[in-house]
Amino acid sequence: MDREEASTVIEQEHQLATRLDRIEPLYGDRMEAAQRHLDSLTKPPGSLGKLEAIARQIAGITGELAADLSKRAVIVMAGDHGVCEEGVSAFPAEVTPQMVFNFLAGGACVNVLARGAGADVYCVDMGVNADLVHDSLISCKTRKGTANMTKGPAMTREDAIGAIMAGFDLAEKLAADGYRMFATGEMGIGNTTASSALCAAFGAMSADEAVGLGTGIHEERRAHKVDVVNRALACNEPSPADPVGALAKVGGLEIAGLVGVILGAAANRRPVVIDGFISSAAALVAASIAPQAVAYMIGSHLSQEQGHRKLLEGIGLSPMIHLDMRLGEGTGAVLGFHVIDAAMRIMREMATFESAGVSRG
Amino acid sequence: MDREEASTVIEQEHQLATRLDRIEPLYGDRMEAAQRHLDSLTKPPGSLGKLEAIARQIAGITGELAADLSKRAVIVMAGDHGVCEEGVSAFPAEVTPQMVFNFLAGGACVNVLARGAGADVYCVDMGVNADLVHDSLISCKTRKGTANMTKGPAMTREDAIGAIMAGFDLAEKLAADGYRMFATGEMGIGNTTASSALCAAFGAMSADEAVGLGTGIHEERRAHKVDVVNRALACNEPSPADPVGALAKVGGLEIAGLVGVILGAAANRRPVVIDGFISSAAALVAASIAPQAVAYMIGSHLSQEQGHRKLLEGIGLSPMIHLDMRLGEGTGAVLGFHVIDAAMRIMREMATFESAGVSRG
Repeated sequence: MDREEASTVIEQEHQLATRLDRIEPLYGDRMEAAQRHLDSLTKPPGSLGKLEAIARQIAGITGELAADLSKRAVIVMAGDHGVCEEGVSAFPAEVTPQMVFNFLAGGACVNVLARGAGADVYCVDMGVNADLVHDSLISCKTRKGTANMTKGPAMTREDAIGAIMAGFDLAEKLAADGYRMFATGEMGIGNTTASSALCAAFGAMSADEAVGLGTGIHEERRAHKVDVVNRALACNEPSPADPVGALAKVGGLEIAGLVGVILGAAANRRPVVIDGFISSAAALVAASIAPQAVAYMIGSHLSQEQGHRKLLEGIGLSPMIHLDMRLGEGTGAVLGFHVIDAAMRIMREMATFESAGVSRG
Repeated sequence: MDREEASTVIEQEHQLATRLDRIEPLYGDRMEAAQRHLDSLTKPPGSLGKLEAIARQIAGITGELAADLSKRAVIVMAGDHGVCEEGVSAFPAEVTPQMVFNFLAGGACVNVLARGAGADVYCVDMGVNADLVHDSLISCKTRKGTANMTKGPAMTREDAIGAIMAGFDLAEKLAADGYRMFATGEMGIGNTTASSALCAAFGAMSADEAVGLGTGIHEERRAHKVDVVNRALACNEPSPADPVGALAKVGGLEIAGLVGVILGAAANRRPVVIDGFISSAAALVAASIAPQAVAYMIGSHLSQEQGHRKLLEGIGLSPMIHLDMRLGEGTGAVLGFHVIDAAMRIMREMATFESAGVSRG
């Protein structure tokens, strides 16, 4: 790194730190007010379980007891992974750009489920290894995919911070446009490998625990994938004490973008629903960079990917939906919108013991 | 039982058997066609987990690959329990009729969640211990609650079969009115005690495993509740070989009604979404009476009630939503409608590998 590059990175780090300083704690008094309202409703205290926790959290985030979160978006970030040349995926890398066009045409699963949940889909090219042109595609591409992390860092520190800030600024722009709630989604052949490496790098679990069957590999290829992750860790020596550095070494461009989306949602007091394994790896990195952002995250589904449960526990998130899905794209997070809607509707519409004339226990 | 009563029961048993004979297996060829369609969609094979299982099941039930299930109802059955005089609940028995009026006024949690899921709520008095009059209330009451099952049978065999047939006929009438999908719900102070007794009576688990904290009792009262269940079992000696008899001895009128709703849904080829612990106890009884009905059931949520997981496993159902709820009313089942909607929308709207030009793995 020459002096000019070094000063650029220092300036970037400063810009990122300025953004992160804006993430504030939840409104504790509003959370208490939400709980008092919940306790007045015609149900045994606490009997709505996580729906009550969500209602408290949304009140703490937004300041409103029954926020109108009907304008919501799922942000689907795409990127390619140099580590694919190690043969870690059941699908060829060309599927990443093909699926981007599927998102843009509205035919992918996340589009279908987003229509069902009243959510808009924003598709972002964070680093797809193809020249993509489409009116609806948001381009934040600085490079055509990461480098092979078994042979060196996946990307530079400058790339990683740039991708985080691009995600942050996108969430901020959408918040300014009136979006009240976000879901994270992603597409990137090879990105369960990068996510597994991040889990291991941050000490969430071993590579062998973190590496699952991805989109459909078999046990033999899984053992190879564990070896690939271990080689990437040995080559790069990522440290959890430097989360941005670890993200640069063994992460992905779309993962870095999602780290930014999560942090940007938190800085703009917007709940952000975390999808499956890859999105949760991004949430882990975001939590390491800015622990106060965790209060803005909502877990959605429990993926079939073997490391997901432990990954969520490590962040402090609790999955609501157990469907053995393993698709990504934001599909589980978008389903989570329905549960959040249920919590808000309860706050808005349920009768109280007094109004309904029901005896308390 | 005198000769006249005996001949009435024999006639009733015959009428019930005639209804049960109409429950047919799912359409296997339509399930295969659904799977072929799922495998053509732009996602790794099997990656939508239980959403794919639901899509296959709905195809097998309805014969349609993407059925329009938008007209749906949650049937909330209410009844009182003589066993309440043993002091098993955190709430007084007067809450049962009070909550019935809350359902009818649209202020209970199930009403709120049903509006969110586009479902109509039908409230049925199966045996509430009060004189209830309301234009929207469906009355199938033959007695004002069950007798105290620690001192004798909760109800007569005639009562039980009558309640089952009332539930069956209601599901059949609603199916004829165009309802395509049902959810089960209930209200009845004391009905977790009856449900626990049914679990133990059918050998699903011990009384100690089955008895939980209900709507909010503490450990000391739980131990008392276990004792109450064991006394009811010792007094009545219910046998799983005679499921209707066991239901009469230690069940409840609203539980018997839900057994009928489930069987009536199956006989009319309608999916029926099973709510929490009490509804699942009804599903267990329905499965014992007519094992072929299980194919029409869809598990919804995993309740916080401790015996629920094992109860569902025993029936062969898998919960989709894990929110630590313990309210009943049909609240979890109604949330399940959103997941079923997602599965149907996927069948209807997702692009195929061919249409989207995406490479297969």
